[in-house]
Amino acid sequence: MSDNLHVLITGAAGMIGQKLIARLAREPRIGGQPIGRMTLVDVVAPETPKNISPEVASRTGDLSLPGEASAVVADSPDYIFHLAGVVSGEAETDFEKGYRVNIDGTRFLFEAIRLREYKPRVVFTSSAAVYGGPFDGPVTDDFQLTPHSSYGVAKAIGEQLLADYSRRGFFDGIGIRLPAITVRPGKPNKAASGFFSSIIREPLVGQNAMLPISDDTLHSHASPRAAIGYLLHAATLDTGKLDQRPNLMMPAVACTIAEQIEALRKAGGDKAVARIQRVRDTLIERIVAGWPHQFLAKRALDLGFVPDKSFDEIVAHHVEDELGGKVSA
Amino acid sequence: MSDNLHVLITGAAGMIGQKLIARLAREPRIGGQPIGRMTLVDVVAPETPKNISPEVASRTGDLSLPGEASAVVADSPDYIFHLAGVVSGEAETDFEKGYRVNIDGTRFLFEAIRLREYKPRVVFTSSAAVYGGPFDGPVTDDFQLTPHSSYGVAKAIGEQLLADYSRRGFFDGIGIRLPAITVRPGKPNKAASGFFSSIIREPLVGQNAMLPISDDTLHSHASPRAAIGYLLHAATLDTGKLDQRPNLMMPAVACTIAEQIEALRKAGGDKAVARIQRVRDTLIERIVAGWPHQFLAKRALDLGFVPDKSFDEIVAHHVEDELGGKVSA
Repeated sequence: MSDNLHVLITGAAGMIGQKLIARLAREPRIGGQPIGRMTLVDVVAPETPKNISPEVASRTGDLSLPGEASAVVADSPDYIFHLAGVVSGEAETDFEKGYRVNIDGTRFLFEAIRLREYKPRVVFTSSAAVYGGPFDGPVTDDFQLTPHSSYGVAKAIGEQLLADYSRRGFFDGIGIRLPAITVRPGKPNKAASGFFSSIIREPLVGQNAMLPISDDTLHSHASPRAAIGYLLHAATLDTGKLDQRPNLMMPAVACTIAEQIEALRKAGGDKAVARIQRVRDTLIERIVAGWPHQFLAKRALDLGFVPDKSFDEIVAHHVEDELGGKVSA
Repeated sequence: MSDNLHVLITGAAGMIGQKLIARLAREPRIGGQPIGRMTLVDVVAPETPKNISPEVASRTGDLSLPGEASAVVADSPDYIFHLAGVVSGEAETDFEKGYRVNIDGTRFLFEAIRLREYKPRVVFTSSAAVYGGPFDGPVTDDFQLTPHSSYGVAKAIGEQLLADYSRRGFFDGIGIRLPAITVRPGKPNKAASGFFSSIIREPLVGQNAMLPISDDTLHSHASPRAAIGYLLHAATLDTGKLDQRPNLMMPAVACTIAEQIEALRKAGGDKAVARIQRVRDTLIERIVAGWPHQFLAKRALDLGFVPDKSFDEIVAHHVEDELGGKVSA
């Protein structure tokens, strides 16, 4: 590697991609080395930060189309954050697109790296969607991968590819299974999990939010800030410590909806809490019941990944990072 | 399904393929229904049985090449036994060929079935190679898949695809993880596992065999006859009982080399046992030490898969099926 690092980010227009770019724009270093260049790729033009020290190149392209993957690694980037993918809902409704983008796109990228014959660090964002029930308590590091969605299947396949390419020395890879990202910034969306963020995000700006499930439901969360921390820690971790099992569940804060609401009360008071409207939705209840609720991510914790301390801290990060510290419940 | 079943077998020229064909030639029924047609596919022309009741079509083709997969399912076979694949040694030395045949070949076949919009039973032969150590005792049904070979990775990916295609209703699939097949008929080969069969097969025909590891090594085996039984049971099993986890470890007989040798003694006497030459090979010792030694295949047993009763029975099957009942130690 040269002194000035070249960082490639796929899926750069997505929420995590944008947060990672902003972080690297603020602190343009990985493992103490300065970043000289960032290449940002997505199917829509990613927003690029202005007036930062690394040279930034933005590229619109789909890794699952011929030639694109080899083009994006043509300059041998030292660090590759592979975040690109079709989200779970779309991968379920559009089977062919999901497989093409999530499986072929990942494989083509890995192949392009192999054929360049160099050995970059590759950080792949997998997902807790690789787990499918029945669950017998919290998910442990060695829980088998039996996804209940095509999105989860594609992530599980990406993990297998990453492990094999790493074992064979084609690159130096690590896969991290992200939990639900809460509080997700932006507008409400139609994801079945959307309310976990909505019930915090909307009340803190004086808007109402719907809560479709019961208060005692347990779920696990990581803030966008923690997720970016996971990505950057994965980038510099000694992969020799992974014992040929380079795919890791990330830690998360497990809490009930009631605990989420109490964290909201601390940040926004009773007025914010009153913005939550309980509208039971049995379909969403059933979907959420099928998800894993809690992760015992011992390996990741032992390897130094740092989760949020509590749901209170998750809300505090949101207020700081998204609302400029100002709550307007 | 029509009354007269159409059965497709891929990898029909391989050892398991040939045994399955012979069995279906003798008993041309699945689940009580008569077989009207068998389509046999392999990259080399499979041997085809003569003078049997089903009509037999033999086809030379590679499922990973364009058009081949859709051609083999063009007549909508009711049962598909997908056995085709590059073996583990070759998949490790020829990475591109292994991925092409073992991953693309499987995916193209599954895609061809999906695009025909019918719902055959698909039986996929996975392998114990999906497991990679460290192992903490016997492998249980829920042991995570962390293969240490590209062959194992391709099988793990095939399993994920099978589960997703089945979950989505594109076909009615079941994957079975075969253990080591012992006694493997035929000539000695260079597989690291070859001696497990050699030390039985060669002495029973008056030839010497090398034993490279110590007598107390534990390993697990299924006879070719048991493996064919697994395939046929998988073909008719109620897949509704699989709880969306359609990939199953198969049961196997766990025994030490010393127990294998005692079974040989019963079948061929001291003269046969004297044919075993101990030539320690530390490389093979290390490879074998990395394999799983024992499987607690509770799910498969509960679902009615019937293993060999003992290693004695495995030897007896070999003598009956391969030697016409005659030992010539």
